[in-house]
This record gives sequence, structure tokens and C-alpha cells, in this order.
Amino acid sequence: MKINLQRIGTVHRLPDETCRLDLDRKFAEGLLGVEPGMRLDVLYWMHELSEEKRRQLQCHPRGDRSRPIRGVFALRSPMRPNPIGVTTVEVLEVDGTTLRVSGLDAEDGSPVIDLKMARS
Amino acid sequence: MKINLQRIGTVHRLPDETCRLDLDRKFAEGLLGVEPGMRLDVLYWMHELSEEKRRQLQCHPRGDRSRPIRGVFALRSPMRPNPIGVTTVEVLEVDGTTLRVSGLDAEDGSPVIDLKMARS
Repeated sequence: MKINLQRIGTVHRLPDETCRLDLDRKFAEGLLGVEPGMRLDVLYWMHELSEEKRRQLQCHPRGDRSRPIRGVFALRSPMRPNPIGVTTVEVLEVDGTTLRVSGLDAEDGSPVIDLKMARS
Repeated sequence: MKINLQRIGTVHRLPDETCRLDLDRKFAEGLLGVEPGMRLDVLYWMHELSEEKRRQLQCHPRGDRSRPIRGVFALRSPMRPNPIGVTTVEVLEVDGTTLRVSGLDAEDGSPVIDLKMARS
């Protein structure tokens, strides 16, 4: 089985803690119906995680050594074999294939791999 | 940028509508703290989606032609450029690297690519 992921866009962190998502223009049609006020799940690739950290399967929750070690599958830590972040954001603005969103904890430059309507 | 995803396990649908997730044994340590009753987000690859459907960027919500067409980024449709499903499940049983879960809508045989503690 080959899993062939494509970058659909890029996260840019803005000084006011919101983020701009620049999607590739070829995905413009996919944004029909995405409007300010909507909540979306953003899937992004945590590109700054080293290969070594991808192999680390246990850690202290939030790096807090006073808390017992847990497996990464029982946490939302960035460390995990496939470092895909999933964060629910609020759409603030839509301009062509550029969105401004709040609530995204991704690093600047992270590849965006999917957007989905949030469940709630 | 190279996005190199690995399969961490496989979804098996069971006759009672629950699913068994068989994880590769090399990821056993990552399950420390995963217990029955816990809610997890399962990320899986929708492996049955054709390359053609990966290029389709708009569709009727739930295939219902009475509803207006929308972009896939405003839906949770399986059709999307990177067909990664994200579903919150309840853990029913844990036995080594095998989990039984309820609430998963993945097709039988889908590659599991991540498990995370659910947000709520």
C-alpha cells in the first residue's frame, strides 16, 4: 500500500496569533461553502518533528515530568509515528484560496493536508 | 518536502458493527495508558477511494442530489485530495496491540495511521 500525501497549502502564523492558510489555487473549487464563522478541522503535517522524535512512543504529558509517562496514542503530543496535527479552528475570513483562521496551534510553515467541516 | 506516512495498523470490521484495530507490535509502547472507556481520535487512510475521486473537489452533501453542491473542504465527505478519515471512537477492550472500538465508520482493511486522545 502506498500512501501518497500532497501538500494542499501552507500555514502562516500572523502577529495577532491568528493564522493565514494559503491553499494552492488548484484546490479553489473545494472551498465552495467555506465561510466566516464556520468551524473546520485543519489537518497539517508537523514538519519540524525530527525522525528521532517520530520513533519516540512515550513521553510525559505536555512535557511535565511530574506527570507519569504515557504512550503517544493516549496523548495529543506532536511526537508520534505519523505527525499529523488535527485542530478545530474558526474561519475568520475567506479571500479566494486564502483563509484567515483562529485557534490553530501549528508551527509557521506547516504543510496543510486537509480541511473538513468540524463535527460540532 | 517529503511526507512519508507509515501504516501503524489495520481496521477490521466485526459483525456487531464494532471494529478491531490491529496495531503493529512495534508500536506497543505507544498504547501505555489507552484503556477501555477512553475516547480516541482514529486517523485512517480511506484506501478504497480512487485516484479519480481524489481529484473531485465538489459533491452533494452525503450524495443527496436535493442538497446544493459544496466544496469537499466544507464537508466530511471521503472525497478529498488526501483521503484521511478522522473519527472519534470509544475504546471497548485492549489486548496487547489489539483494540476493540465502537463508533468507527472506516471500511474493512483501512490502514490506521494515528491514534490520539480525543479532545472531549
